[in-house]
Amino acid sequence: MRKLPRLIAPFLLATLGAGCSLLAPPAPPPGSGAREGEAVRQAIEAGHARSVILFIGDGMGDSEITLARNYHVGAAGRLAMDRLPLTGACTTYSVGEKDPTRPAYVTDSAASATAWATGHKTSNRRLSTTPGTGQPLPTLLELAQAKGLRTGNVTTAELTDATPAALDSHVNDRSCQGPADMARCSRDKKAAGGPGSIAEQTVDHHVDVLLGGGRARFEQRITGGPDKGKTVLKSAVAQGYAIVANADELRTVAAGRKVLGLFAPGNMSREWKGKAAKRYPGTEPQRCVENQRPDSEPSLAEMTRKAIDLLDAPAGKGPGFFLQVEGASIDKADHAADPCGAIGETVAMDEAVQVALDYGKTHPDTLIIVTADHGHTSQILPPPTKTDHSPGTYSTLITVDEAMMTVGYATNLPGRSQEHTGTEVRIAAQGPLAFNLAGVVDDTDIYRTIARALDLTKASAEAPRAVHP
Amino acid sequence: MRKLPRLIAPFLLATLGAGCSLLAPPAPPPGSGAREGEAVRQAIEAGHARSVILFIGDGMGDSEITLARNYHVGAAGRLAMDRLPLTGACTTYSVGEKDPTRPAYVTDSAASATAWATGHKTSNRRLSTTPGTGQPLPTLLELAQAKGLRTGNVTTAELTDATPAALDSHVNDRSCQGPADMARCSRDKKAAGGPGSIAEQTVDHHVDVLLGGGRARFEQRITGGPDKGKTVLKSAVAQGYAIVANADELRTVAAGRKVLGLFAPGNMSREWKGKAAKRYPGTEPQRCVENQRPDSEPSLAEMTRKAIDLLDAPAGKGPGFFLQVEGASIDKADHAADPCGAIGETVAMDEAVQVALDYGKTHPDTLIIVTADHGHTSQILPPPTKTDHSPGTYSTLITVDEAMMTVGYATNLPGRSQEHTGTEVRIAAQGPLAFNLAGVVDDTDIYRTIARALDLTKASAEAPRAVHP
Repeated sequence: MRKLPRLIAPFLLATLGAGCSLLAPPAPPPGSGAREGEAVRQAIEAGHARSVILFIGDGMGDSEITLARNYHVGAAGRLAMDRLPLTGACTTYSVGEKDPTRPAYVTDSAASATAWATGHKTSNRRLSTTPGTGQPLPTLLELAQAKGLRTGNVTTAELTDATPAALDSHVNDRSCQGPADMARCSRDKKAAGGPGSIAEQTVDHHVDVLLGGGRARFEQRITGGPDKGKTVLKSAVAQGYAIVANADELRTVAAGRKVLGLFAPGNMSREWKGKAAKRYPGTEPQRCVENQRPDSEPSLAEMTRKAIDLLDAPAGKGPGFFLQVEGASIDKADHAADPCGAIGETVAMDEAVQVALDYGKTHPDTLIIVTADHGHTSQILPPPTKTDHSPGTYSTLITVDEAMMTVGYATNLPGRSQEHTGTEVRIAAQGPLAFNLAGVVDDTDIYRTIARALDLTKASAEAPRAVHP
Repeated sequence: MRKLPRLIAPFLLATLGAGCSLLAPPAPPPGSGAREGEAVRQAIEAGHARSVILFIGDGMGDSEITLARNYHVGAAGRLAMDRLPLTGACTTYSVGEKDPTRPAYVTDSAASATAWATGHKTSNRRLSTTPGTGQPLPTLLELAQAKGLRTGNVTTAELTDATPAALDSHVNDRSCQGPADMARCSRDKKAAGGPGSIAEQTVDHHVDVLLGGGRARFEQRITGGPDKGKTVLKSAVAQGYAIVANADELRTVAAGRKVLGLFAPGNMSREWKGKAAKRYPGTEPQRCVENQRPDSEPSLAEMTRKAIDLLDAPAGKGPGFFLQVEGASIDKADHAADPCGAIGETVAMDEAVQVALDYGKTHPDTLIIVTADHGHTSQILPPPTKTDHSPGTYSTLITVDEAMMTVGYATNLPGRSQEHTGTEVRIAAQGPLAFNLAGVVDDTDIYRTIARALDLTKASAEAPRAVHP
């Protein structure tokens, strides 16, 4: 394996170092003299962010973004996530479990989340542990806590699903979500003296704000340690968490305590519904059915807004924060060849991005990053004909342009779970050090950029690049 | 249709306007005072480029780039095209022929080339003519000529193929490549008083450097006008062209005359060969067979180097130039589900990009852009299994990482021509005004950026955006 020459950032630093900033906040207007120079130097050389908001669109590759744009705002329209000023292409490969010197060109969400959460590549299914050897890897969330920052983890999936779990747990297999799900992680069980399942580790991490689905995992009973026999939920209460169970309770919960919001037994409901793709000639042209999320569940945008409010309390006076927000079911709908599901979740994620961009306007010392953990199956295709059509499944959507858009799914046999792809994905950023994510970067560069922006221990931020650890 | 808010460039301009450049050339070192300020202001406000080199990787979407990177330099390696400092995502849709207010979400290379060459969307199969009405649209090449710049058009396809043809011809159908190919363009025939086929228009445009394949089109006989009965090639000689037919002749041809290089009867040879993808279980794991291009044909890198030498002669003293370089057979190999063909052509294109980057080092007033005209079929997939595999075709490649990479093709039935996709594609840039291509842009923004960088008539550069003309 050849090492990645870190050409992009040095080039930009050299160029920018001459007195230049592409970052938000915009530099003061010309003529403000010393302050201008200082702001620029701070933005470039120190590049400190008070807070970081990281959006992970699970499976939200360029094809999925284009689908959502075309359908929802039109081919010439622009999503909120399109408006971040700096974009790059991000590589997402994982590595082999038996031979971590070899890449696996298609990652799952666990290995990918480990990469951006810890700066280290691992093998598929692992969460913030080393490939082969299972050693825990420090995460951005842990480092942010150690620095005294507040932390939040928000998802539309179960809170114990791979993406959020990579920040606040270390397990050898992503399936080990609750105390009763430990078949593949027997040594990690609390009964065996281990740190327990993802749900237990999540609560024991004392993350300030946890919002998502997966209540059933937290209702399982702990198998060892001081809370043996209690549910994880009871343990959370004992450890000082306020528990919220629906959108109303989320609205009214006050800052000052840790908050655990569990809004569904499993994954949260999808925003939109529609017909799944079918073999040729595919579905009849369809319009997606919107507003399918029950009022009892908050939207991803509502969770994001509340998480920011809680983490930043009293308004703007807190120590700063690190918040991860996952739009999880883009991936889940793509696996199911469900274009309306995937587009609705991308739009919901985009509305959450808008919440962060609004916050960024008044808090320009916030680094905001929007990216995906891997590419996915969906492709925008020409209209199918009898002689020329995909051997997979199709749906035709009637977009806001009042035009027909054909979406195809053929990474697995019809009816089987459609697959992730290994393509590089888009990354977009604004705020301090955003320029570090322009050009071509790796998902481990997200870790390094955030660690540097938040000044999370020099040692961690400047650790040698572990492309294939 | 909603109009695209042009948020990205104004944001960047506002930010950059405070005294900042992400452009090559890097600003002089701090302390050089007035000159520094002047250089920055020139780069941002005027943003003039002396020359522009535009690379179009036909069908070179993010998936195709990732395939080439993984195979040739490894997952953690970097291609030359990965090293341009600024990247964006570029939308590529075309519009309907009957109703140009509606997008067609999957473009062909003709409509896409029209978009970047003229700044106007058109319908598939059209070359630099308006949808429905067939009116000619001025092209970057024509505007550059009008300003006294030199012009070049280089491709590995026929010179009359869609991408190069959009710059130096105006026809209603891309098939009208030679005087004998005018079935779909009868009114354009020279015999009918029209401007003739693409080959005729290309020569009559007096482009300074034309290098590629398609000699057979130029050996067809002209049907009307002063050169009636002559071949297009004879007409070219009569109009002052030096004709070169192989790599040796290209090496020795001197500056001072227009040059028409035709190195193959049809498309030029592909660089690499390999087994085409097959139905499950796909091909045996394969390594591509390199060096398949005959020595008599120059590489794309050699054509690019010679084109720059000719256009810039005497070295660096010419009036500046606009050069388009197409890596055409990435697309053609993808249509044929031939991963080695596509990767070899992407690598060849990358070597041509390196030639331009080397030129840019000593000529920092050169805007270099690398992008694709549309996404394409290939996807990097997990290893197939008996129960889980694509219904399309597969090949497994053994990469430079000594790891297995599975590539799938399923946008059309096995054995049929695989399809373009509608995904946004990567765009990368360096040099004056490169920042205008960061964020999310449309292929028509390439026209606007180049027209502005070369100051190609105020009227053209500032023409209102014709998203759906």
